[in-house]
Amino acid sequence: MKILGIDPGLRTTGFGVIHKQGSKLTYIASGTIKTIDGTLPERLKTILAGVSEIVRTYQPDCAAIEKVFVNVNPQSTLLLGQARGAAICALVAADLAVAEYTALQVKQGVVGHGRARKEQVQDMVQRLLALSGLPGSDAADALGVAICHAHSGDTLATLGAIAPGLAKKGLRVKGGRLVG
Amino acid sequence: MKILGIDPGLRTTGFGVIHKQGSKLTYIASGTIKTIDGTLPERLKTILAGVSEIVRTYQPDCAAIEKVFVNVNPQSTLLLGQARGAAICALVAADLAVAEYTALQVKQGVVGHGRARKEQVQDMVQRLLALSGLPGSDAADALGVAICHAHSGDTLATLGAIAPGLAKKGLRVKGGRLVG
Repeated sequence: MKILGIDPGLRTTGFGVIHKQGSKLTYIASGTIKTIDGTLPERLKTILAGVSEIVRTYQPDCAAIEKVFVNVNPQSTLLLGQARGAAICALVAADLAVAEYTALQVKQGVVGHGRARKEQVQDMVQRLLALSGLPGSDAADALGVAICHAHSGDTLATLGAIAPGLAKKGLRVKGGRLVG
Repeated sequence: MKILGIDPGLRTTGFGVIHKQGSKLTYIASGTIKTIDGTLPERLKTILAGVSEIVRTYQPDCAAIEKVFVNVNPQSTLLLGQARGAAICALVAADLAVAEYTALQVKQGVVGHGRARKEQVQDMVQRLLALSGLPGSDAADALGVAICHAHSGDTLATLGAIAPGLAKKGLRVKGGRLVG
């Protein structure tokens, strides 16, 4: 399964593609889409075209995108929202299922706790994917989202596999939890 | 020239299409795209697909979209931003030039002053486009944006036409103003 992770932003949108086979994760690609100049519609077009191009090139099976947190500056929040909307549009236009994870979930999924620093995320991404060098901050965040989704998929697949057995015992999985 | 106006929103996106011939404006179509249920990516997909369908159906020559104002609730601002981003993506994906107008500019362009009430905008839209009934609020706003763009285009065309004459007099048009 190929997973595309996106770290959205108006100036810089990070992307990372990984391959998941069982519990083994392999690095495929990562990078950034930059939109420095132009009107807002032009910049959104660059993000839309950029993410669409990545989807065409790497043909991921699913996608995950970071939930952005609200900025202190409402105008910035609005701009970031529009950039994130453009990235999601490129994904759903390609009929990809899009999972969403908060920065906290990504840190927990990659480093193991939610208060990890940026450098710790970069370091763990490098180790988990056996990269020869430290990934850039935006690419690392995007790869982190993809890793987070790969782990979350693990959990769901495991639950799915044991669910038939549980059903015999009168138990079932609901919202990721066992209920009687 | 056919102009598509958009009043963006996550729950309701209004659209309005008008035809402009000289100073004469004619109504072509208007309505709303509703996205009540679903995940955020699903709702953005509905907006993207809806606006794309409108573009395919009415083949506008250009588009105009209302600038949204920042909500008191940052989470709402973020959602609205993403919805607006999706609408803009549908427009730029169809290679349409997208103009942006604030609510104040739309009210000034349609009613003549920026402090007009919603009902005054609906009333003026009905009169300017000779509609048999009062348009709905979201559709009226979208038609208002299209009308605003039609008027603004008028001004620019006029300035463009007189500009060669002005150049002989050592005057030129810069940012819509005459400079010596």
